[in-house]
Formats: sequence, structure tokens, C-alpha cells
Amino acid sequence: MRGFKTLTRADEALKKFLEALSLKRLEAEELEVTKALDRVLAEDLLAPVDVPGFDRAAMDGYAVRASDTFGASQGNPIILKIVGSVEVGEFPGFEIRSGEAASIATGAPIPKGANAVVMVEYTRRLDGDLLEVWQTVTPYENVSRRGEDATKGEVLLKAGTRLRPPDLGMMVALGFTKVRVVRRPRVAILSTGSELTEPGSILEEGSPRIINIDKIILSAEVEELGGIPLDLGTVPDELEILEKRMAEGLKISDVLIVTGGTSVGIKDLVPEAVERLEPSGMLFHGIALRPGKPTGLAVVKGKPVLSLSGFPVAAWVGFHVFARPIILGLLGTREEPLPKVKARMSRRVPSVPGLRVFLRVIVRREGSQERDEGSGRLIAEPLRTSGSGILSSLLKSNGLVIIPEEKEGIEAGEEVEVILLRPIEETHTGKA
Amino acid sequence: MRGFKTLTRADEALKKFLEALSLKRLEAEELEVTKALDRVLAEDLLAPVDVPGFDRAAMDGYAVRASDTFGASQGNPIILKIVGSVEVGEFPGFEIRSGEAASIATGAPIPKGANAVVMVEYTRRLDGDLLEVWQTVTPYENVSRRGEDATKGEVLLKAGTRLRPPDLGMMVALGFTKVRVVRRPRVAILSTGSELTEPGSILEEGSPRIINIDKIILSAEVEELGGIPLDLGTVPDELEILEKRMAEGLKISDVLIVTGGTSVGIKDLVPEAVERLEPSGMLFHGIALRPGKPTGLAVVKGKPVLSLSGFPVAAWVGFHVFARPIILGLLGTREEPLPKVKARMSRRVPSVPGLRVFLRVIVRREGSQERDEGSGRLIAEPLRTSGSGILSSLLKSNGLVIIPEEKEGIEAGEEVEVILLRPIEETHTGKA
Repeated sequence: MRGFKTLTRADEALKKFLEALSLKRLEAEELEVTKALDRVLAEDLLAPVDVPGFDRAAMDGYAVRASDTFGASQGNPIILKIVGSVEVGEFPGFEIRSGEAASIATGAPIPKGANAVVMVEYTRRLDGDLLEVWQTVTPYENVSRRGEDATKGEVLLKAGTRLRPPDLGMMVALGFTKVRVVRRPRVAILSTGSELTEPGSILEEGSPRIINIDKIILSAEVEELGGIPLDLGTVPDELEILEKRMAEGLKISDVLIVTGGTSVGIKDLVPEAVERLEPSGMLFHGIALRPGKPTGLAVVKGKPVLSLSGFPVAAWVGFHVFARPIILGLLGTREEPLPKVKARMSRRVPSVPGLRVFLRVIVRREGSQERDEGSGRLIAEPLRTSGSGILSSLLKSNGLVIIPEEKEGIEAGEEVEVILLRPIEETHTGKA
Repeated sequence: MRGFKTLTRADEALKKFLEALSLKRLEAEELEVTKALDRVLAEDLLAPVDVPGFDRAAMDGYAVRASDTFGASQGNPIILKIVGSVEVGEFPGFEIRSGEAASIATGAPIPKGANAVVMVEYTRRLDGDLLEVWQTVTPYENVSRRGEDATKGEVLLKAGTRLRPPDLGMMVALGFTKVRVVRRPRVAILSTGSELTEPGSILEEGSPRIINIDKIILSAEVEELGGIPLDLGTVPDELEILEKRMAEGLKISDVLIVTGGTSVGIKDLVPEAVERLEPSGMLFHGIALRPGKPTGLAVVKGKPVLSLSGFPVAAWVGFHVFARPIILGLLGTREEPLPKVKARMSRRVPSVPGLRVFLRVIVRREGSQERDEGSGRLIAEPLRTSGSGILSSLLKSNGLVIIPEEKEGIEAGEEVEVILLRPIEETHTGKA
């Protein structure tokens, strides 16, 4: 007897959970482009016009016919007649003929007849509107061609792209003021446990009560992913109340997370409440994760319900392994790249075969020399105090090593891949 | 003659700029913990109390004296008398003596006399309040010791830490509702150029005007770093107006960024305006960066002034190389780890020795197999259209390769380090 009758592998549980949910991207909503940073694009971004919309100067200088400059050099300058000046924001009202030039500012339209720009540094103005040119330019040299940044009809960003600052700039360049993005998933968070005290409540020294900390951690994680956390409050360990609140939460949310109440002991009410809301809705209860074993996954009325441990580190791991892919799936976007480094383990770490272990480590540089993150001279030191209730293990560590189910531990000196959660030098000096 | 008389190396310019500025961390402000995500901690976070504040059960089960269980096994159970029950949130009013046990819930205080918890799975209740125990537990097994998460007086996070979700949880666990964070740096952004049209203005097809796109890109970058962008609007290319607006901007901001107006041509007014505001304030004008050569760095009234190219990619590079370290310096925090991968260059890329080149690349997997990002079977393909005005190069690429000044280019097949800006599979299918 090991508490849970069977422990399901994390990857297998996630796969079946996603299959049972068959998530669809949420509906789109329209937003000002200026408010769309980090939101997820709901439709492909197509260029409705060419950008730039006309050939324009890429440098300050003189618009010329390239053929007029052939053979020009510092030792053999050629002379052109200046017939005008082109400023940015206006189309020139004249044409350049052979032997002529026009002064032109960066970004200004190339006059008809001209097909290149000689940079101002390779010219000298002479008296009588004459220009000495010391350089040969090829056709379209120093010219931004019409459509070179974006061609009308071209797909510039695909639906599902998380919008970065340059993307907003491109939309503005294309003339858009609004953009259609995927609406933010609503993630309801319900805490269970009669014993929980809300954050900010003043505890007397030595009070036996426990402050509800999972809610603030998970709410912040939801926000970081681009979701909206909804606080469903705390319910006592009573089945009727729990079931009612879960049903209410599912009505107003896309995802329901319940924390606490998932161990196999005397207060295990979440699976029972799920069963009442949706018979056989509980897909898995007990995952081969450390920490995070008491995680439960259910589908109720077609929506994902995640039952996470009341222990903060276990809840955090359960969130990252299961809630994160669900939220990204509802947004229809991919996981952003994670900063990873290779490091050597400072000491042997035993592991239980069959369990996926989330090991918190301190990554530090070997020796004192400043080295690049990627150089491989990094040491990963596992934290010694790392139970699922030891939240400080997530503050004192700067990296995470995931030991797969197949491995029986990591040897001292073995190279591992570390997901960096914080900068390498910002490690804690306290006890490991 | 190369436009700028001298080009300063980017690292040297940054070093001297930072020295001239001798940046100090900005003042602190007090915030609700729930609003502090991604803000920078202004003071070390010390634990004012032990967490947990008492020894508590880490598992559901029975509180016992460990010595009573010595030798217990499934074949040789021992029998204890159940004398009570401890719930979470209350101190038990009784003591455990030898031969006694109390049922206890996870998180509940350990009764006096007891020093371990036997998990419920290793017990069986018999008639007459008797308990069969099948397992030997050692002292403090399944007990969370007082102070094991945080010890009173311990430094849990250092000033300068960017606050992550678990950090907020720890503050709440320590009883804090407010936190002192560094105030957000105010970054004023001034656009120059009579020709610029504001975003959203309707351009007729073929209009010669240019939409101001640098402002939205740089504002979004400032926000991402945790600063507050201030829009100083657009000024025409007139020295008096530019100088006046720059002076106004410096009064209300910690950093001033001016875009456009920095090429060596007919409209180069920013260095002149700086000279009038602070003689010899211009430290550098012309940086050995591609794109980003026309970047200028100045100190005016002790504040950083950055003159960035009007070309969006050059402005973006100039921002990342110079404005980013300034903003992080004002926050007193370190650069967050960047996602980096190793990839092989698909073709030779020439480079100009002495210039630091920011090459935009598409990183893709070789072959179709799903592989891990770190596995090294990645190809980096440089974009073919990559001038400083080609904003789409930042949308179509998913990575950045920085070619250092000393290198004369990258050979086909050479391994390079790529900073990943977007997920690897999310590459654009269009022309490279």
C-alpha cells in the first residue's frame, strides 16, 4: 500500500488529459495595438499594403542615375548638376535626367528617373549647383525598394504568435490600430481546508493556523502566462460546500484549480466532489511526480479541473506540468523558449525509479572567473532541504533539474541540463 | 570619410557611459504583495518569524513516539491506544505518552510527547480505539520541523531580486502584506522628424509619409523591462524646438531616448541640441554596431540620453545594447537569463572586422525528428533581407547571433550561439 493505488507517469497523464479535453483556441477579441504586448495573435497577420509603399532613400545624400556614376572615384570624380531637393514626407515634383542629381534625405521618395543614392560623404558641393561625386553606385544602391520590408498579401506573423515589441511596430507600419488576439483564459482557483487563513490576516506568534499561500503563487503564475486568475475563496472540508463552489467556479472559468484536500488521508474530498459533478470525471489521481504526487486531473462538463497539493512546491510543480500546457493550449500558442544551461552536479542525488523528480539546485560558476553561461563550467548544487512544503527551496535555488522516470539518480560530476529560473550570480548565500 | 569620424566599440562605449553615469538604484516604494509580481525587491527580505512556527505533521496519519514503533513491521505489528485527534489550525489539549497515538491531519501541530507521524497507510484501526502500526518510524519522520522553511532572521531574498510567483507566496507565509520595491524607471521617448505620422493616422495608398513605429516598439521594450514609457511626442527637425523638448523630457524622466535625427546628413540636430543643454555632454556618436551605427550616448544633467537611429531595427539593437543595461542599473537588478541554443550556420556570413553585428536568423531542426532544444542538431539560417530598416526581419527570425568585433564572419557549418527570441517551431515559412 503506497497511498495511491497506482501512480501514472506525468507525460502519459498529460497526453491522455489533453486528448480527453481536445482543447480549442479560445475566441478572439479586438484590442488596440498599443495594448497587445505579450498577447497571442488570433489570426495570421497579412500585409494589406507594400511596406515601404514606394522606393525611398536609405541614406542621406543625392539621388542619381547609377549609370552616371560608373567609373567615378576619388581620383576621378564626376560632376552632376543639382536640380532639386527631396524631403521626407513629400513626392518630388521633378524628374532626374542624365547628368542630374537631387539632394535627398533618408526616407524620402526617390524621384522619377533616379535609381540610386550616393551617400553625402562621397560628394562635395561646388559653386553653381554643381556636385562632385567620388563613388560609383550600382542600381538601387542605398535605396529601400517598395515592398522590401513587407509585400502586400504576405503572412508576417502566424496565428498563435505571442506578440513581441517589434510585432506591434510592424502592425503600426502596416496601418493597423487594432489587432485580434485570443481572449485571456479564466483560471478559477479554489482553496480547500478549514484551517486556512487568508493572506494578511494577523497571526499571533505561535498560532497553529496556516496562511493560504498557494493562491497567490498560482494566481501570479496564471498572470504570467497571460491568463486571468479568479479567486473562488476558501471552502471548509465539507463535501456539499466543495461541490457547490466547484460547480460555480466551472460556470465562470475555462480552467478550475483546486488546491489542498488531495492526500489520501481523512479529508480527501475533491475526487468525491468530482464524481458527484461528473461520474468518472476523475481521470487520474496520483501522479509519479516528486513533488506533486497527490495531483489529480479531471474533466467536468468538458472543462479541465486540476486538483493540486496544498503543499506549495508540489502545487507549483503540478501547475507547471499540467496547468501550463492547458493554458497555453487554450491560447493556441507554444511554450516560449526556456533559458537552459549545462552544469555538473556537485554531489550524487538518489532518485526513485519510476518517479519524475523536480530537483531545485543552485547553479554557480566554478572558480571566480567571469564566464559565459554557455561555457559549461557551471556546478549545480542540489538544495538539502527540499520537501514539498519547503517553499524557500524555490527562493534559494536558481535552477531546476528534471530527473526523468528512467534514471535512478544523478552521479556526482554528471552533466545535467538545468532550467535557469533566476540569474546565475543571484544565488542565495544561505544554507543549501 | 566614413560618415562618423570614429566608431567606438559597443562594449567600450557602454563601459564608459556607465562610468560617467554612476547609476544608483532608484528609490523604493511600498506595494501590496499581490501587485509586486516582476517588480524588483528594494531591500533584503528577512524572515521575521520561523516558518513553520511549530512542529507539524507532514502527512496524514498518527502522531506517535518514534521509540514505540521500533521493530514494527507488517509481520510484527505493534498496538497503540488512540487518545485523541488533532486537526489543522488548533493546538492539541493533550499529551502523547508511551503506548499512545493521536490521529493527525497534514499541517496540524504535533502534540506534546509525540515526535513522529506514522502515515495512515501503514496502520489499521481496530475496535476499542486501538491502532495497529506496521512500520518503524524514526524521530521526526513525517514531521515538518519549526523553522525548516525559514528561520527567524534569515535572508530569503536579496535586494535586487526580480520577484517571481513563489517569492510572493513566501512573503505571505511570513505574514507580510506589503513589500518595498524599486520604483519603475521613467523612460521618456522623443521622436524627431517633420515627416513622421502618428500611428493610426490613415495613410492614402502611396502616401510618401512615414508612420512613427519606433515609439511603439521602444515603449513596449521599456514596459517589458519594468519601466514606464513616457511619450514626448514628435518634434520637427528644428534645433530650438528639439532642445526645448529634450530639456522638458529630462525633467520628468530618468532616461531620455531620442529617435531619428542621428545620421551624419543634413538633419543631424541631436548632438547639437545636447551640446547646448550640456557642453561636452555627448560622449559617443557613432558606435561600431550593425545595425545601430548612428547611436549616440550623452549625459545631460547627470541623466542618460540615448540618441537612436530612426530605422527600427537599428533603434531596437541600440536599445538592447545601451538602454537595457541603463534601465536594469536604475532598478538595481541583473539581466534575467536568456534562452540560448547552439546551432550550425547554414551558409557563410561575411562580417566587417571591427563591427559588432546583430544577425537575425531562423533556427530550425535538422530533419523532422522531435529533438530537444539543447541537442545541437539545429541549423541557423541568416535572413537575406536584413537592413536596419527591414523590421520584418525581427518578425521572420526567431533568433539572434551576435558576431563579435574580432570575427571576420561565420563559415558555413560553423557552430554559433543563438539567442532565441521565439519558439523554434514557430518559424516563418516565407522568404528568408
